[in-house]
Amino acid sequence: MICTGDEVLTGKIVNSNFSYISQKLEDFGLSLAWETTVGDDRESLLLAFQLAGSRADAVIVNGGLGPTVDDLSQEIAAKAAGVELALNESWLKTMEAFFTRRSRVMPPNNIKQAMLPVGAEVLDNPIGTACGFAVTIGKARFFFTPGVPRELRRMLEEQIIPRLLAKAGQQTAVYLKRFHSYGIGESHADALLNGVEALAPDGSVKLGFRAHYPQLETKLTARGADRADIDRKLAPVEAEVRKRFGNFILAEDDQTLEGAVLAELQQCKGTLAIVESFTAGQISGRIAHLPGAEKIVKRGVIARDLTEICNAVELLNVPDAITKEAAAAVALAACKQTGATHALAVLIDLDEGADRIEFAGTVCLAIASSKGTAARRSRVVGGRDWVRLGAIEMGLDCLRRYLQGLPVDERIDFEKVE
Amino acid sequence: MICTGDEVLTGKIVNSNFSYISQKLEDFGLSLAWETTVGDDRESLLLAFQLAGSRADAVIVNGGLGPTVDDLSQEIAAKAAGVELALNESWLKTMEAFFTRRSRVMPPNNIKQAMLPVGAEVLDNPIGTACGFAVTIGKARFFFTPGVPRELRRMLEEQIIPRLLAKAGQQTAVYLKRFHSYGIGESHADALLNGVEALAPDGSVKLGFRAHYPQLETKLTARGADRADIDRKLAPVEAEVRKRFGNFILAEDDQTLEGAVLAELQQCKGTLAIVESFTAGQISGRIAHLPGAEKIVKRGVIARDLTEICNAVELLNVPDAITKEAAAAVALAACKQTGATHALAVLIDLDEGADRIEFAGTVCLAIASSKGTAARRSRVVGGRDWVRLGAIEMGLDCLRRYLQGLPVDERIDFEKVE
Repeated sequence: MICTGDEVLTGKIVNSNFSYISQKLEDFGLSLAWETTVGDDRESLLLAFQLAGSRADAVIVNGGLGPTVDDLSQEIAAKAAGVELALNESWLKTMEAFFTRRSRVMPPNNIKQAMLPVGAEVLDNPIGTACGFAVTIGKARFFFTPGVPRELRRMLEEQIIPRLLAKAGQQTAVYLKRFHSYGIGESHADALLNGVEALAPDGSVKLGFRAHYPQLETKLTARGADRADIDRKLAPVEAEVRKRFGNFILAEDDQTLEGAVLAELQQCKGTLAIVESFTAGQISGRIAHLPGAEKIVKRGVIARDLTEICNAVELLNVPDAITKEAAAAVALAACKQTGATHALAVLIDLDEGADRIEFAGTVCLAIASSKGTAARRSRVVGGRDWVRLGAIEMGLDCLRRYLQGLPVDERIDFEKVE
Repeated sequence: MICTGDEVLTGKIVNSNFSYISQKLEDFGLSLAWETTVGDDRESLLLAFQLAGSRADAVIVNGGLGPTVDDLSQEIAAKAAGVELALNESWLKTMEAFFTRRSRVMPPNNIKQAMLPVGAEVLDNPIGTACGFAVTIGKARFFFTPGVPRELRRMLEEQIIPRLLAKAGQQTAVYLKRFHSYGIGESHADALLNGVEALAPDGSVKLGFRAHYPQLETKLTARGADRADIDRKLAPVEAEVRKRFGNFILAEDDQTLEGAVLAELQQCKGTLAIVESFTAGQISGRIAHLPGAEKIVKRGVIARDLTEICNAVELLNVPDAITKEAAAAVALAACKQTGATHALAVLIDLDEGADRIEFAGTVCLAIASSKGTAARRSRVVGGRDWVRLGAIEMGLDCLRRYLQGLPVDERIDFEKVE
């Protein structure tokens, strides 16, 4: 892969397109061997194209397809391929229609975006004016893509990955199934799922992970002749992953933990109050701004001190210390005060001392509703940030478990047993 | 620069070390010409080192210095330089002392980290076991650095940048001065600061920007014989930037907006209550978890509905609509209810309609204290996320302005004038 642009090379913007493309290729069982980043510079671009063309089978180039003078990809692609640039009338018409639909006249410098190397194959961009294209340079097929992330993503999925799979002789369909969990570490998950791939025939399902603390994403990449074939191959593996992970699966595919909580509350026509201490509004901040949450999240309260928390929820008998029972009393008081059907209280007692990797905190959380309370106490270690991030996730996940009728106190890998 | 590691190449982790190094080099007036990422693969690493050694003057290699079998940097560096690996007794002792200080015995596989190419120059790593080193490959000086970000950052600043500046013949000192602002767009800032560089002699001060919405960072890179010389050259430029940006400078250097607000409240022995709606806890979440905030942020309240907000702060006369006056009444009620010396209320009235770039919201905010209230109304456009992010920043920045005795309602570039 070749990433282009001064903004990327100078670190002005973080190159998220690179990790996106690279992961997406992995998801389809294609792997990247080499990546190069160069600036908007003719000499560097030409050398990068020539080097990649001499070594790779396929190359994805990102960026440099815009209308301005520092967008050089078409020009250098033509030079490296040893052909001229020519106006692509068909893309010019597509662009003119694009502007007409927006009641605007196309500025003349956009014409540059329709200048392609002679013989190039057009890769359609239905949501922008940058025309993707493919040419052969050296022994490699080059795919040129726009820098705008949403245009790139669509072109990659719809135009480039099918061509790469075909080039690799994999005329099969590929599907990615994802599970999201909280509380199981990556190596534990790997051990737990030992052997699940063998439940599908001929290695057609591949297992992978992506950890972004505190959550873990478990990925099953499945191949088959078509979607029905894939579904049949995937079904026993999917079922086994669900069985082994059990209550730890908090969401699948594009669903999120906060989305799952909102959906459960929507379904039971519930409303929610949230009481936080050291998480400082970051539990509410995950859920209360989402579309639909305005009807569900009734109130959030933040205070760093137990007495102040009790004042805020009008709990008269202030407990002596942060315990499971104190959290339950606070959650019940929040329900009563706000009229919410459900309340989540996450109270944290931070240890004394410097903010090191050994620094820990005690999380006491409770959920209350008319069906009664559930509570959990947990020691979380790893420094102030990890305690806070762990408590946010644990709070939301215990609420999800409560709403789904699951136990809220299953042991997790991120807590310290004492 | 050469980045190494399967995790980076497959997109499993985002390569933040690259943009960090690249920016840091820019800050010191050094520019990166080419970046390559390869996996933990002997053949690719060797080719990458040879190619870079044939073209560049200096190369920074990141990663591959760990104790495990897939850490290959020393081995391939030796091969590319045409020398053997040898045990560096001095680094071995440093590592043993490192483990002793932590009351641990060094595992045998860490010995690998002290195996360096013969003739390599050691680059000290005072906070880790990965030994940095420099060797010459082809015509380039190679600097090998650890993948752990905090180890890399320290080594880059203390060991590598001085060597690169010396190599570039710039035996001068370099200093980076930074200003943080909210409310001025990058192109406006560029126009506002037109000509400031000329206030320093001989082009010794260079102006640059880094936008991370909603804040803008303005950077002055200054060169001189030593720090006193730099201070003298920088002084007139710094003073002019402060004059032209005026009240818009919210912090300088490593200070943050939320840090500035906490410091002002600490100084006046103040306490704070925060009332939020669509920002959903994200204003509190910026400030209430910080060390020291436990004594200052007394309470945070979140509700999406005006009546519910008024209930939460015990404001009996619920206003008809979200206005500046309503925000002021809510802030006053929050002060009264919680006993906090100051209260910030940020109320948002979102427009109807789909979440597009034209989607807007009305932000009405107020700050109350015993010295009276200040309020502001603003239309923010750009979709749900931009309205929310803009309102968070505007809320905190208006609080900063209030605490510093500045007007809270100066016109900003991100609001829509109606």
